[in-house]
Amino acid sequence: MNIADFTERELIARIQRKLPVAPSWMAVGIGDDAAVVEPERNRLEVMTVDAVVDGVHFDRCFTPPQAIGHRALAVNLSDLAAMGAAPRLALLSLSLPSDLTLDDFDAILDGIVALAATHQVHLAGGNITRTPGPLTIDITVIGTVKRRQVLTRSGARAGDDIYVSGTLGAAAAGLRALKHPVEDAEDGARRAERFPLSASSSTSASSARYLYPEPRVRLGLLLGRNRAATACIDLSDGLADGVRRITEASGVGATIEASAIPIGPGAREMFSDNAVIEVMSRGDDYELLFTVRPRHAARLSAARRHGGVALTRIGTCTADGILTLAGGPSSQPFPTGYSHFR
Amino acid sequence: MNIADFTERELIARIQRKLPVAPSWMAVGIGDDAAVVEPERNRLEVMTVDAVVDGVHFDRCFTPPQAIGHRALAVNLSDLAAMGAAPRLALLSLSLPSDLTLDDFDAILDGIVALAATHQVHLAGGNITRTPGPLTIDITVIGTVKRRQVLTRSGARAGDDIYVSGTLGAAAAGLRALKHPVEDAEDGARRAERFPLSASSSTSASSARYLYPEPRVRLGLLLGRNRAATACIDLSDGLADGVRRITEASGVGATIEASAIPIGPGAREMFSDNAVIEVMSRGDDYELLFTVRPRHAARLSAARRHGGVALTRIGTCTADGILTLAGGPSSQPFPTGYSHFR
Repeated sequence: MNIADFTERELIARIQRKLPVAPSWMAVGIGDDAAVVEPERNRLEVMTVDAVVDGVHFDRCFTPPQAIGHRALAVNLSDLAAMGAAPRLALLSLSLPSDLTLDDFDAILDGIVALAATHQVHLAGGNITRTPGPLTIDITVIGTVKRRQVLTRSGARAGDDIYVSGTLGAAAAGLRALKHPVEDAEDGARRAERFPLSASSSTSASSARYLYPEPRVRLGLLLGRNRAATACIDLSDGLADGVRRITEASGVGATIEASAIPIGPGAREMFSDNAVIEVMSRGDDYELLFTVRPRHAARLSAARRHGGVALTRIGTCTADGILTLAGGPSSQPFPTGYSHFR
Repeated sequence: MNIADFTERELIARIQRKLPVAPSWMAVGIGDDAAVVEPERNRLEVMTVDAVVDGVHFDRCFTPPQAIGHRALAVNLSDLAAMGAAPRLALLSLSLPSDLTLDDFDAILDGIVALAATHQVHLAGGNITRTPGPLTIDITVIGTVKRRQVLTRSGARAGDDIYVSGTLGAAAAGLRALKHPVEDAEDGARRAERFPLSASSSTSASSARYLYPEPRVRLGLLLGRNRAATACIDLSDGLADGVRRITEASGVGATIEASAIPIGPGAREMFSDNAVIEVMSRGDDYELLFTVRPRHAARLSAARRHGGVALTRIGTCTADGILTLAGGPSSQPFPTGYSHFR
């Protein structure tokens, strides 16, 4: 049975049955021309939209439907995290090919609903249409932040330390393992002779990192709450891109210490000698990159204790406007980021 | 030159150059991880999302790019109009096939920006991705409304009069004329013998109605402002669907008078004997359907004077929960609406 056997209304009704009771601030929920929401007092609103497209941001061949739903919401929550905002509600726009099975439809929704529940995001409305093209999930997420706690990309100054959350490259390694399971299993067998970590366990850990990225919502809130960070961005398009964008927006340069970059499970094995450059250039990590005034380093303590993820200092902002990768391959220019487009 | 020659950042920069200066309530605009907005005091927020997909909601073969952009925003403004809300900002998510020309990209944006300017909607952010599938434009629009002025679908009571704005069927006739220009021109020539209105002028008028639907934003505001309407919906999926949804949500029935339905330019000629049924069943009109307590009929005067469109009483809500088309083809059941999906 596939979704072409159902009307848009029937599919919407299936979604509604998966949702918890609407919060009291939802004045009009799903089922009218638009959702009506009571704003939160004394807060600014933070809003973002992002689409994931089959064949571009995921591949139905090796991405389970729950992971597709998870990703579609996670990429947006990550953007809100990078602003220091608490997510509040989401609008869901689905463009569905008519051969999508009802089971896959349900599982995609389960992936969205589960992550929404984790972060207390209410699904306030949306739209379903068919498409002759690939499955496309477009989610708008709206959250709130106190005025003085907004994290932008433009607040870094020369001398600020540069930090990154978690580890990088695991998602890229996981994606590669999912794309080429057989060939990499063979590579892994060869590599297993050289590395103590078993290839299969690092592969499954990195695959999970690709399939179920954890948006750093709590960390973003903590970084904004006491002005611990001066600038912040999420690493959806890779570390190199993130450094470039923060430094451009802030009018500074940066020196990144290659040896300090926390390389994630599976990535060092998979990318071996070129791991630093690969890890900097690839996207999908959804970690936060942020800058901190050295004299405010103590403000990071709450984020370290309660942010749910390790924080690593990887470099410093400089006054010269140049991007330098220190201790990396000497002939290598600062890598460019991953572009979804060109 | 097509959009595959540009990065996402370059395309976003092209969009930014088309935008007017950001209003003072935009705390952080395009260019960060998310937009940050100052909420409007003492208002509820109204939000909707809708996608238009090439081959489903429009066809690039006969829809000029400006009209595609116009439509993508108009369908959302129409949803806000139906809630009595004033639109305020939009988030734009574009999924672009790589063969889209830069000229078409610019023209699509021009269509969006022009309609946004008409309704003072600020483009607050968005996303651009490539797609291996059809051009898809997904727009989220957020507006505001005073708590007591929200128009829902559920407020109609038995005895309320049912009104519709403007005329119906012109968009459907226009779509057909655009799809089959030659054959209809011949039909038109034959019909021109029977009808005083020239086929070519009615065809171009109806084509314009299809290509550039006018969302009834001002009318929606006026219907909400003094509680003139008890329920309201936009007719994106046709009159039959609109009547069905308002009556279901309100728990009433309805009698629609076939002879009262205002049939638009080109539609009567094109659909001839079956015009009422065709006009009721087809979508894309983006007029408002609303209900009014007879004793409050005087409250419509502001909407009549300043709403920018004629209002026609077409029937009455009934207590019996049945939908009746009075004066129509006697054997005909109440038509179903247009479904985008099945």
